[in-house]
Amino acid sequence: MSFDRIAIIGAGLIGSSIAHAARDTGAAKQIVLFDADATVRARAKEIGFDVADSVAQAAANADLVVLAVPVGAMGDAAASIKDHLKAGVIVTDVGSVKRAVADAVAAHIPPHAVFVPGHPLAGTERSGPDAGFATLFQNRWMILTPLGGSFEEKSAVDTLTRFWQTLGANVEVMDIDRHDVVLAVTSHLPHLIAFNIVAMAEHLEAVTESEVVKYSASGFRDFTRIAASDPTMWRDVFLNNREAVLEMLGQFSEELSGLQKAIRWGDGDYLWQLFDRARRMRREVIDAGQDTASPNFGRDKK
Amino acid sequence: MSFDRIAIIGAGLIGSSIAHAARDTGAAKQIVLFDADATVRARAKEIGFDVADSVAQAAANADLVVLAVPVGAMGDAAASIKDHLKAGVIVTDVGSVKRAVADAVAAHIPPHAVFVPGHPLAGTERSGPDAGFATLFQNRWMILTPLGGSFEEKSAVDTLTRFWQTLGANVEVMDIDRHDVVLAVTSHLPHLIAFNIVAMAEHLEAVTESEVVKYSASGFRDFTRIAASDPTMWRDVFLNNREAVLEMLGQFSEELSGLQKAIRWGDGDYLWQLFDRARRMRREVIDAGQDTASPNFGRDKK
Repeated sequence: MSFDRIAIIGAGLIGSSIAHAARDTGAAKQIVLFDADATVRARAKEIGFDVADSVAQAAANADLVVLAVPVGAMGDAAASIKDHLKAGVIVTDVGSVKRAVADAVAAHIPPHAVFVPGHPLAGTERSGPDAGFATLFQNRWMILTPLGGSFEEKSAVDTLTRFWQTLGANVEVMDIDRHDVVLAVTSHLPHLIAFNIVAMAEHLEAVTESEVVKYSASGFRDFTRIAASDPTMWRDVFLNNREAVLEMLGQFSEELSGLQKAIRWGDGDYLWQLFDRARRMRREVIDAGQDTASPNFGRDKK
Repeated sequence: MSFDRIAIIGAGLIGSSIAHAARDTGAAKQIVLFDADATVRARAKEIGFDVADSVAQAAANADLVVLAVPVGAMGDAAASIKDHLKAGVIVTDVGSVKRAVADAVAAHIPPHAVFVPGHPLAGTERSGPDAGFATLFQNRWMILTPLGGSFEEKSAVDTLTRFWQTLGANVEVMDIDRHDVVLAVTSHLPHLIAFNIVAMAEHLEAVTESEVVKYSASGFRDFTRIAASDPTMWRDVFLNNREAVLEMLGQFSEELSGLQKAIRWGDGDYLWQLFDRARRMRREVIDAGQDTASPNFGRDKK
């Protein structure tokens, strides 16, 4: 499948990866990027992308507009394109939170356009236009969370499904509120915990930050990778998926109290059983093709 | 440097890696392994190691005995070798907790032997004799925590330093109690948190375990790797470094309350500042040579 012209608003890790992937796979004949940050626009041009000087210029005549900005900026991005959309255009987004984004964006979508929220479960800890690469979406999930059930929307879901499949993704349609709860567990909470343990290491009296860094290979370093993700993106995720994140955080703290109590009272059986169950889940993750089976993620390979 | 004969008690990931590394580097002329588990002994023989049928046979005539069993089994392992040690032998261990192990082991060391506790900061999520490999200790820290200050001990520290350097490690001498506090932050707490979040995912009402597994690539999967480590080893770590772990867990929970409050009240500045600091620590970890700079640990490389 191929669009005649797609516009990508936001030239960060995800936006630039879509541009690379769409170009390499022929999923679009013309790909135009825009970014609100002039420095990012200049860099995206140097990389070799077709970069518009205004959002109006980018959106004009596009068959597909992808909003690839932080979750908190989605509403403004939608407002900025709304007067420049041609009839029949599909608008989608790539935000990690779907209900808040859908509410913020849908309000600006004119009747001659159709909006389907989406979220590719793909990324790295890097950000910016230089972080993008064409294979980012290969074998990763792409979740679409359509809002209504109009004929135009069903057709747009089909078109977007083929588009993302062309980019290498496995496409799923999911209820929008379920998306936010599931991702609160699989993504938002793990990131929050990683940010927390890394930030905590700064505040210790007993151990210096340089000691933590020096001996980080014993476990801590894995958390620093996740905690290196874009601060603006993640601030917006937590502010916009507040209820689900706070609910999961509550359950995490409850479980942690159980572990704390087991350690305090020397309940070895409790600890062993829990650790053994955790080990089994690793095997399930590998069997599901969601991670490499190589020890240490294969990073020690010589 | 080269020992005439080393005995390794425990043929798991660390024990078998020492055997591989000592053989490949010539750090010992003869390397004998023993494991209390007959199945593990049989497997270690199949791999090609020299495996003794009894601990007495393994320890006899050794110049160096390495205790490579779970922390909670160190005392029994020391008791089992104590009547079979030749004069001048060095005994060391590889346990992740040092004070409790030193107390449990030192009681069994006869006056004609010298004991120097140690901890190589190296490993993977795998366990058992098949998990070992010769380069595990390359450029990893090896921490020695000598107990006293006798002439024999100083000499043993020098000898062990050369031995571990031959195996590729960077050797540090550290105060024994400081070791337990530093490792509580850099290793024990991260593992505890990872075990906790993975175990919690089993108990959710709102989200099924198979959904968590399916969408784990969005962050959760990194925690499952750490949580796949040996349950017995980790049970013993937490039971034997209780105070330091509980102290760090308290600080973790305090910090987490701050984050929770910021999310509840929508304090975006607090979140952004904290996430930005966490990102800086990742750069320090990479600059210190403690992790790969490749995005996603390089695991997505095609």
